Amino acid sequence: MSGNGGEGADLRLPFTEVYGVVRAATERLGITGVRGDRCARLFTEATRDGVYSHGVERFPTFARNVADGLVDVTAEPRRVSAGGAVERWDGRRGPGNLNAWSAMDRALELAREHGVGAVALGNTNHWMRGGSYGWQAAEAGFLAMCWSNTLPNTSAAGEPPVVGNNPFVLALPRTAGPVVLDMALSQFAVGVMAGYAARGERLPLPGGFTAAGELTDDPAAIVDGGHGAAIGRWKGFALAVALDAWAAMLSGGRATHELGRDPARETGQTQFFLAVDPSAVGDRAEQEQMVDTVVAAVKAADTAGEELRYPGEGTVRTRRENLEHGLPVRRETWEALRALG
Amino acid sequence: MSGNGGEGADLRLPFTEVYGVVRAATERLGITGVRGDRCARLFTEATRDGVYSHGVERFPTFARNVADGLVDVTAEPRRVSAGGAVERWDGRRGPGNLNAWSAMDRALELAREHGVGAVALGNTNHWMRGGSYGWQAAEAGFLAMCWSNTLPNTSAAGEPPVVGNNPFVLALPRTAGPVVLDMALSQFAVGVMAGYAARGERLPLPGGFTAAGELTDDPAAIVDGGHGAAIGRWKGFALAVALDAWAAMLSGGRATHELGRDPARETGQTQFFLAVDPSAVGDRAEQEQMVDTVVAAVKAADTAGEELRYPGEGTVRTRRENLEHGLPVRRETWEALRALG
Repeated sequence: MSGNGGEGADLRLPFTEVYGVVRAATERLGITGVRGDRCARLFTEATRDGVYSHGVERFPTFARNVADGLVDVTAEPRRVSAGGAVERWDGRRGPGNLNAWSAMDRALELAREHGVGAVALGNTNHWMRGGSYGWQAAEAGFLAMCWSNTLPNTSAAGEPPVVGNNPFVLALPRTAGPVVLDMALSQFAVGVMAGYAARGERLPLPGGFTAAGELTDDPAAIVDGGHGAAIGRWKGFALAVALDAWAAMLSGGRATHELGRDPARETGQTQFFLAVDPSAVGDRAEQEQMVDTVVAAVKAADTAGEELRYPGEGTVRTRRENLEHGLPVRRETWEALRALG
Repeated sequence: MSGNGGEGADLRLPFTEVYGVVRAATERLGITGVRGDRCARLFTEATRDGVYSHGVERFPTFARNVADGLVDVTAEPRRVSAGGAVERWDGRRGPGNLNAWSAMDRALELAREHGVGAVALGNTNHWMRGGSYGWQAAEAGFLAMCWSNTLPNTSAAGEPPVVGNNPFVLALPRTAGPVVLDMALSQFAVGVMAGYAARGERLPLPGGFTAAGELTDDPAAIVDGGHGAAIGRWKGFALAVALDAWAAMLSGGRATHELGRDPARETGQTQFFLAVDPSAVGDRAEQEQMVDTVVAAVKAADTAGEELRYPGEGTVRTRRENLEHGLPVRRETWEALRALG
C-alpha cells in the first residue's frame, strides 16, 4: 500500500467492521438515517478503493470541522433555480460528501429526463474523494464529469498560489470496469508527497515549489511551507482558473480567492456536476464495445515493461485486494474513530 | 511574435486582404457560399488571434487533404440520433472547421432550449483551432466545453504513444473579454517546439521524449522522431484516455487507436461539444461580476514580475496587435494561398 495517504496503516480490518464504526460515529455527529448510512459508506468506500487520505483517515478532521461549525450536519441542499436540464443548488454548508452525492444524483435524474443534466452547487464543503461521484454515475450507466474548487494551494511557476488544485473527475460506464479519472490539478497529492518524504525519497519529477518559490523534487520542501505545481505548469494553472470561474459563475458560490488560506478553516467550496445518458443517442452494447476497444488499446501498448493503466483500473485492483485482506487503517485513526462512535 | 508556429512570418497583411485570398481559395476548393465565408473566416481569425499553426499557414495542408480525398468539401454533417438535449452527429468527412462550428452551433441551440446542450460528432476532420468554437459559444453568451481526439502522438513516460494530445477547450462569456482555455494535452505544441529548435534554444522544461523514449528538453529531438509528453505525465495520459473514450462512446466515431499513425493521412476524428446557458440559472450581471472577480484575483497576484494571465487574455492582446500591424504570414504561404485562389 503506497501513496494517497496510506502510509503507516498498521491494521487490516474487514469492510463491515470499519463501516460499522464509522456509521456509529456519523450517528454521534448527528448524521442519521439514510444520510448517516451514505456518509459512512462514502468514507469507508474511499478507503476500500485506496484513496486513504480522503477515506476514514479523514473522518477525525471531518468530525473536528463539524465541532468547529464549518459543517452543518443537519443542512440538506436546496434548489435555488432551474432552467430545463441545468440547476443551481445551495449546499447550505452541509456535509460535503452528502451534498456532492445529492448533486450528482440530481444530475443523473436530469439526464434521465433530458439526455444531459447539469448541477452547479455552491456553499458546500469538501467532497472528500471526488471519484466517488464518478463511480456513482458510471455504476448507474451514465457518463459524468464533475469538479470542485479548493482554496489557493497551487502555482504555475512558484508565484504565490492563486489557483486551487481543483479535483477533476471524468467517468464512463463499462460493465467490465468503469473508466473513472479522479485527479487533482497539482502534480502530486499532498498525501503522496508526505509518503515520499516519510520514506526519505525524492519525487520522480519536480512536483512543486519551495517556500522561496523554487522548483523542487524534494517532497518535504513542498509540503512544509511550499506548495504544489500545477500539471503542465501554465496549462494546469489555466485549467484551474477556467474550472473555478465556471463553477462559481453557474452556482453563485465562492471562487477560489474567496476560500481563505487556512486549510483547517476551508468551507463554502463550489462544484459542478454533469451527467450524460448514453442510451439517449446509441446502442448500449455498441457503446460498451467502443470503450472496451479503447481500454484494450491502452493495455496492448504495455510493451516497455512500464504498465499502462486506464483510469479506474487501479481502483478495482486495490478494492479487490482490500476486500480480501482487509481495509488498511492506522491504529491511531481506528482508536479515534471508536472514541467518536 | 513567437510560438504557435508563427516563426518565419515575414509579411504583415491586413485582415481583409488575407481573408479575401483565403476566401478565393475556399471557392476554388469547392467550398462556396456561406460555407466558404465561414471556412475562410475561421482560418483567418486563427491567424489574427495568434494561433498561426492552425490558421492560414495550415491552409495549404488543408487544400492537399482535400486533393487527397481525406476531406469531402461538399459533405455537411448529418444528425444520426437525438435524445432530448444530447445528439449524435456524423461529420461525413467534411471540412473539420465547418463541422465543428456546426456542432457547437447545434449545442448552443440545444442549450437555448434545454439550458444545456451536447453534441457528439464522429467521422469528422481536424478542427484546426479548437479555441474557435469556445469563442463562438462565449460570444453568444454561453459557457462551453469541447474537445477532439487525435492520432496517437503523446506519452506519459516515453512508451510508444497510445494517446492523442487531444485539444481541450473551456469557454466562459464575459463582456470585458471571454475566458477561453484552448490547450492540447501535450506540454508543448509541435509548432512551439519547432520555434525553440529554430532559435537553437532548449525548452523551459522537459517537454517530450526522444526516439529512444528518453525524457528531454531538446526540442529537435522531440520533433524529429520523438514525441511530446502529456501534461502532468500520467495525469494528462489518463485525461486523454478518458476524453477519447467519452467522445467515441457517444459519437460512435473512431477512437485514437483507430486513427492510424500518419499525420498526413489523419481523418475521421471524433469530437464532443457541450454548451450551458448561464441565464437559465442566474442573473447575467451577477454572473459576469463573479467571473470578473476571478480574473481580477489572477491579475492581482501578479507580484513576482512573472505575469499571470487568465485564459483568453493573451488572445485579445495578440488580436489587437495583429489587427493594428497586420496579420503575420510567411511569404511562402502567402504565395501558395494566392496560387490556390
